[in-house]
Amino acid sequence: MSRSDPPGSTHFNHAGQAHMVDVTGKPVTSRVAVASSTVRMNPAAAAAIRAGSSRKGDVLGVARLAAISATKWTSTLIPLCHAIPVEGVEVQFTWLSHGDPTSPASPETLQCEVTVRTTSRTGVEMEALTAASVAALTVYDMLKSVDRAMEITATRLESKSGGKSGDFSRA
Amino acid sequence: MSRSDPPGSTHFNHAGQAHMVDVTGKPVTSRVAVASSTVRMNPAAAAAIRAGSSRKGDVLGVARLAAISATKWTSTLIPLCHAIPVEGVEVQFTWLSHGDPTSPASPETLQCEVTVRTTSRTGVEMEALTAASVAALTVYDMLKSVDRAMEITATRLESKSGGKSGDFSRA
Amino acid sequence: MSRSDPPGSTHFNHAGQAHMVDVTGKPVTSRVAVASSTVRMNPAAAAAIRAGSSRKGDVLGVARLAAISATKWTSTLIPLCHAIPVEGVEVQFTWLSHGDPTSPASPETLQCEVTVRTTSRTGVEMEALTAASVAALTVYDMLKSVDRAMEITATRLESKSGGKSGDFSRA
Amino acid sequence: MSRSDPPGSTHFNHAGQAHMVDVTGKPVTSRVAVASSTVRMNPAAAAAIRAGSSRKGDVLGVARLAAISATKWTSTLIPLCHAIPVEGVEVQFTWLSHGDPTSPASPETLQCEVTVRTTSRTGVEMEALTAASVAALTVYDMLKSVDRAMEITATRLESKSGGKSGDFSRA
Amino acid sequence: MSRSDPPGSTHFNHAGQAHMVDVTGKPVTSRVAVASSTVRMNPAAAAAIRAGSSRKGDVLGVARLAAISATKWTSTLIPLCHAIPVEGVEVQFTWLSHGDPTSPASPETLQCEVTVRTTSRTGVEMEALTAASVAALTVYDMLKSVDRAMEITATRLESKSGGKSGDFSRA
Amino acid sequence: MSRSDPPGSTHFNHAGQAHMVDVTGKPVTSRVAVASSTVRMNPAAAAAIRAGSSRKGDVLGVARLAAISATKWTSTLIPLCHAIPVEGVEVQFTWLSHGDPTSPASPETLQCEVTVRTTSRTGVEMEALTAASVAALTVYDMLKSVDRAMEITATRLESKSGGKSGDFSRA
Repeated sequence: MSRSDPPGSTHFNHAGQAHMVDVTGKPVTSRVAVASSTVRMNPAAAAAIRAGSSRKGDVLGVARLAAISATKWTSTLIPLCHAIPVEGVEVQFTWLSHGDPTSPASPETLQCEVTVRTTSRTGVEMEALTAASVAALTVYDMLKSVDRAMEITATRLESKSGGKSGDFSRA
Repeated sequence: MSRSDPPGSTHFNHAGQAHMVDVTGKPVTSRVAVASSTVRMNPAAAAAIRAGSSRKGDVLGVARLAAISATKWTSTLIPLCHAIPVEGVEVQFTWLSHGDPTSPASPETLQCEVTVRTTSRTGVEMEALTAASVAALTVYDMLKSVDRAMEITATRLESKSGGKSGDFSRA
Repeated sequence: MSRSDPPGSTHFNHAGQAHMVDVTGKPVTSRVAVASSTVRMNPAAAAAIRAGSSRKGDVLGVARLAAISATKWTSTLIPLCHAIPVEGVEVQFTWLSHGDPTSPASPETLQCEVTVRTTSRTGVEMEALTAASVAALTVYDMLKSVDRAMEITATRLESKSGGKSGDFSRA
Repeated sequence: MSRSDPPGSTHFNHAGQAHMVDVTGKPVTSRVAVASSTVRMNPAAAAAIRAGSSRKGDVLGVARLAAISATKWTSTLIPLCHAIPVEGVEVQFTWLSHGDPTSPASPETLQCEVTVRTTSRTGVEMEALTAASVAALTVYDMLKSVDRAMEITATRLESKSGGKSGDFSRA
Repeated sequence: MSRSDPPGSTHFNHAGQAHMVDVTGKPVTSRVAVASSTVRMNPAAAAAIRAGSSRKGDVLGVARLAAISATKWTSTLIPLCHAIPVEGVEVQFTWLSHGDPTSPASPETLQCEVTVRTTSRTGVEMEALTAASVAALTVYDMLKSVDRAMEITATRLESKSGGKSGDFSRA
Repeated sequence: MSRSDPPGSTHFNHAGQAHMVDVTGKPVTSRVAVASSTVRMNPAAAAAIRAGSSRKGDVLGVARLAAISATKWTSTLIPLCHAIPVEGVEVQFTWLSHGDPTSPASPETLQCEVTVRTTSRTGVEMEALTAASVAALTVYDMLKSVDRAMEITATRLESKSGGKSGDFSRA
């Protein structure tokens, strides 16, 4: 590649063909990645989630299990991902807004944050991002009868550590 | 449920327990759903995608296949989804911004739109949303070495038709 | 087959070789199957499940989702099963015994009952049985740190209806 | 947790939320687990299995392969299970009763015992139990046309060794 | 496309982008496909297979089950394939050569033929071809310790019927 | 086994029963396997592939991804295979013949060669062979509308290194 070429994806070889990157020479190290996904919904959907925690139907409990399972499906979904032995997953839901009962039309935002751990030759950023996405999609699925216009507003890596490419933490 | 109860998720029974909704009584009809997901990236990542189309590595070709395959995994990922026979999938990528070569720091946004068709007792909204999400995640995976802070900014249903709940089109 | 031959499995052809039975000539009809599985555990494990329902960790909520998902994996696990479009799943847990607080060593028994519905050329007995088994295995997994000797004491078909082989109901 | 709390499941965190337990700090050790599942059937079903071994259709051969494959699906079926590299599986069938030809109604019992080995951070109890269950379910599937009332009478861990929680052997 | 263009794949749209072909407008009809795969092996491997049928280990029984299961995985493996409800599978093994005991070095050829049936909007050619390939690969796997140079010499569609593209039978 | 017995498959135990070979005692070593599969097609199909590389639809790009994904499904497809952490995959397509424009009926042959790497207790021959087969099947699928008589003419191991059974290279 000449100096003026744009930086490229490591998922293609020098001929521009997709490959699964050879990681046999990389050391097995401890790695952690944290990703989040947020869902913006109308107050009725938010109320249904909060009611669920008082035994009307546990939306977040279902979404949490979906997120944990999704970490095991990441290499099936993302074509050039290596299969990684996921060794720990935590899923945390937080309301980024608290509903205004005097303003029924104001949207509320729920954040799902997933932490994934492994001891491996490659990182678990994709596992964390996939799990956060699936948690958000599951919330949508369970409440689409209440708010079909619900939107997943931001899915992103929050931090990662371990591995040669260095640590990352969103500013 | 009393009149003043918040509307709830159909994915729970009257005791608040998760179930797979019984759809045996629903008619088999033709259904379409369209969903989109957008990815905001730095100019270097956008340039790598555009270079790919000129044989440096076809990022969008990989993401398109990942989206199509994802429609087949939706009922595995989303716990209470019915398995649906997906009968047609189109994936379209569009740049919502056009890079400003004089402003290297200005982010660019790529949109992935997925259309899914079926003839079934339930809709394919979740298939379309899952496929759009996986397309966006695959773009992230392939270019995270160029822009680790890339963000999936919006994932949402654009429209759906067919089925008892009526048609939907985002305003 | 001569008259004195023992009745055989339809899963083998006349040469004794496994095959997937040809069902193309069978009509598509509505079918239901109910299966159950019971788990016998020590009082500490039973107490942990009951405490879970008061927010210490919802063992039965996890097992219920595992059972619903298992209906989608049945044809992967049981080699000669046809893949069936599962169209409704209910999972019900019942305590067949009520712990005697003055007799800490007396075992308690939890029953999981799964009802599966489809509109198909073959029945869903295996889906119901597999789901009930997976619910019981998930209960074991979640409480094996409390009672490793826990035993799944009975897994069986309770009833089925629909299809040429006629209805069945355990006496 | 106060002293008087019941012992709980390690599959929930201190807030009672499901998680995949972090095992990154546990050593990689050699582990073995043995589990069994028994099937009680009528004499006609037992005769069909025995005839199979003389080339009428090898029920136990099919069930054995189903059990081996099931060890690879355990972390898909059991939501909070880690994916484990299974490194050895043996499946053994034994008749716990020998049919009484003068008493055609007396049930017979077949036992399936599965031994699973790994070198890993966690044990393979769930792999062995899942495999034994799937073997029993496969026997049911293949002979349900002969005896629909067949019952899986006991599924349990026989022994395990390796790992911090110590060895276990059923008395 | 201009008149002189080469005929193209229906798996790409007019812009040359991969898609899953929309089959919602096609009628549901009965369809059958037959495919075969042949394996050329040394006499020792052929002898091991034949000994297997006399209880040394049933290579063909294992390969037959692998072929049947593979019909269920076809749409996972072949990216643009529709998921089809497979409704019948037969697997037949035939020796195309009979070993010459006086010529130990002469290779022998085993043929696996798979027949797949469905009632669907698209055909099952890929299911039959995938199953025949997997049968051959399984034979290789089981006997690679005896003949690592074994070769899968021909995998092809033998015939198909049903569907708009007409019947096909290899001359 | 007596001296005159034919050599047998390691995939069966001394009783002739299938098992997953215990590899816990084998060392973890670096391993590579290369396999190839060839497809013979008519000139129209070959022309469609070559046109694809000039933006009419990238058949080989799709087949390459299918091959890479197939390495992750090998232990699902091949019953007695261990699940292996695939750590690198390269897929190379080569025309073994170059079309004769004056002889439109002369078939052309495309070769797919797959290289798989791992650090594991067992080899990746089956992963390489499965991936090469799936690449060939995908080429068939995408061009069956152009040449239904297309044939996969040879699938075989080219070389392997690493592991106790020694290196292998096809003469």
